[in-house]
Amino acid sequence: MKIHNFSAGPGILPQEVMQKAAEACINFNDTGLSLLEMSHRSKAFEAVMHEAESLVRELLQVSEDYAVLFLSGGASSQFFMVPLNLLAPDQKAVYSDTGVWANKSIKEAKRYGQIEVIASSKDANYTFIPKEFDIPTDAKYFHITTNNTIYGTEYQHIPKSPVPLVADMSSNFMSRPVNVSDFDLIYAGAQKNVGPAGCTVVIVKKDILGKTGRDIPSMLDYRTHIPEISMYNTPPVFPIYVCMLTLRWIKSIGGLIPMEVRNIAKAKLLYDEIDRNPLFKGTTAVEDRSRMNVTFVTTREGIEGEFMTLAQSHGIDGIKGHRSVGGFRASIYNAMPQSSVQVLVDLMQEFEKSKG
Amino acid sequence: MKIHNFSAGPGILPQEVMQKAAEACINFNDTGLSLLEMSHRSKAFEAVMHEAESLVRELLQVSEDYAVLFLSGGASSQFFMVPLNLLAPDQKAVYSDTGVWANKSIKEAKRYGQIEVIASSKDANYTFIPKEFDIPTDAKYFHITTNNTIYGTEYQHIPKSPVPLVADMSSNFMSRPVNVSDFDLIYAGAQKNVGPAGCTVVIVKKDILGKTGRDIPSMLDYRTHIPEISMYNTPPVFPIYVCMLTLRWIKSIGGLIPMEVRNIAKAKLLYDEIDRNPLFKGTTAVEDRSRMNVTFVTTREGIEGEFMTLAQSHGIDGIKGHRSVGGFRASIYNAMPQSSVQVLVDLMQEFEKSKG
Repeated sequence: MKIHNFSAGPGILPQEVMQKAAEACINFNDTGLSLLEMSHRSKAFEAVMHEAESLVRELLQVSEDYAVLFLSGGASSQFFMVPLNLLAPDQKAVYSDTGVWANKSIKEAKRYGQIEVIASSKDANYTFIPKEFDIPTDAKYFHITTNNTIYGTEYQHIPKSPVPLVADMSSNFMSRPVNVSDFDLIYAGAQKNVGPAGCTVVIVKKDILGKTGRDIPSMLDYRTHIPEISMYNTPPVFPIYVCMLTLRWIKSIGGLIPMEVRNIAKAKLLYDEIDRNPLFKGTTAVEDRSRMNVTFVTTREGIEGEFMTLAQSHGIDGIKGHRSVGGFRASIYNAMPQSSVQVLVDLMQEFEKSKG
Repeated sequence: MKIHNFSAGPGILPQEVMQKAAEACINFNDTGLSLLEMSHRSKAFEAVMHEAESLVRELLQVSEDYAVLFLSGGASSQFFMVPLNLLAPDQKAVYSDTGVWANKSIKEAKRYGQIEVIASSKDANYTFIPKEFDIPTDAKYFHITTNNTIYGTEYQHIPKSPVPLVADMSSNFMSRPVNVSDFDLIYAGAQKNVGPAGCTVVIVKKDILGKTGRDIPSMLDYRTHIPEISMYNTPPVFPIYVCMLTLRWIKSIGGLIPMEVRNIAKAKLLYDEIDRNPLFKGTTAVEDRSRMNVTFVTTREGIEGEFMTLAQSHGIDGIKGHRSVGGFRASIYNAMPQSSVQVLVDLMQEFEKSKG
């Protein structure tokens, strides 16, 4: 049975990427060696690292004012690396609280300076993206989480900020065009749209670094990694290779504009069914609906388990909602084909009929 | 042409591990999903995580007093995590300086307390392991680097220490039995003997943690990861799986005692030839020779490049010595078959004959 992978992350990757990754485990680019046992200082891997960086630059039109890094670990490590590198102890940073991950970024930042939450939808269980708030001009930066995996909300418009903008884009990075120059720092754990778990992409404006007066451990200082092309220490070789393949795939379909067109179409297909089908309803403000994580619940008591069983029996995998929202969450990242979304929509219609 | 992978790391892995890793990229354990796109919260991956931890415990007979963690990043991150977690600002830790990596661990530790280097072979370009030194009993811990990849030296006997012993075992971890109870903390980047680049194994005595009074970022606090079985955040799924496969392979050959027997035999084969062959000589003190990284130079001017070319033409890969030692370095990690060492030895003999 074909499995349709709606997992929230690590999430679905293109079939051709998995095929190439498998080949690299045996014989990488006809070197006679597996990429798993290959020196990161080899010409073969250095080419991968350069191509990965170039593809990020090309797809997002990143200027030379910014460094593009592939670091080990996940976005969780950026939660403290961002303030450690950008915020002096007597300075202030402001955050928008749009969910569990935004909250963690706030909690970790509090060690490094004065942190103020200027916007929050916590009282509404994070079902919307706050839009009315003032950004104090004396803040060092403003931090947002552009897509909220758990709640299924996404900033459809990036707020105008009078201070440097920092964004955790983990779950919608490379799913749509972004104007990088609107940001001073972007970070994204790879394991949603750009690769497997094990590395994080950081795009950082170089001239904002080195101003906190803080003595930062080498590995945690972005400036360590910039001249070393992310190879100050042994990088996560295989995850970076799979990222490179995934970025190549995004380029092969034409880049982020066609990628966004696909993602809009997939999201519309599913949200339209949720809105039409009397057995289901969405959980978030309509204007803030995420194109990546579609959250919905049933409208009748006692039918949730039944639909879950039906879905599983048709190869629909990973749609159980996060415990803090309940119901269902269908994650439809870049690599999710429209045909798999259609399978889910068809099942929702079949379920409606079966319920009379 | 068969390639014999003598790379210093990321280094050679067992063929069967690479084969299974490739299969997992396509269809992991008949789930119909690639492990690269699979949730770390899936039952299938949770089983991997548990087995990886169990195998470390079993192979090294690790007691329940210790936690076994698989963290993202490399040993370079442990250079600061160790003092961050173990050393209060007014406390002292002592280090043995046996090379570049030991040096980096010293440099990073200096941010966190008083660091004293009590032993060093720096003046002899790290060609031996210092053995005469006093360990002050008021030190919080004593740090050693058990194998020095660049210089080809290895502690053949672990020093007795009156204070907790901390060891960077990155390049000889799982190559021989170790009495874990002699140590309070062991860390090892995976990419030599236990897996690909992208994760680090940490074995830490639980009762030494949480005593510095320091407010540590969640991701950098070992205590965060212990109750979460190394899944506080999304772990490096694929690298951990490949580690698990490699640990399974070590178990399949009978564990660390037979592993050590093999490694002794391989090292002897190569060192015997270096000592016999008038064209070559070793670079380190004989009693401190590493079983993992065999460093040697030529005894005549101008023949080094010639031997390198000969070796490369026979599929010998990765034997160029580190620039700080020169000559050759043959890394013969666990997965290196004796037959490949024999190919190198045969070539050394052939080279000798060709030189008359």
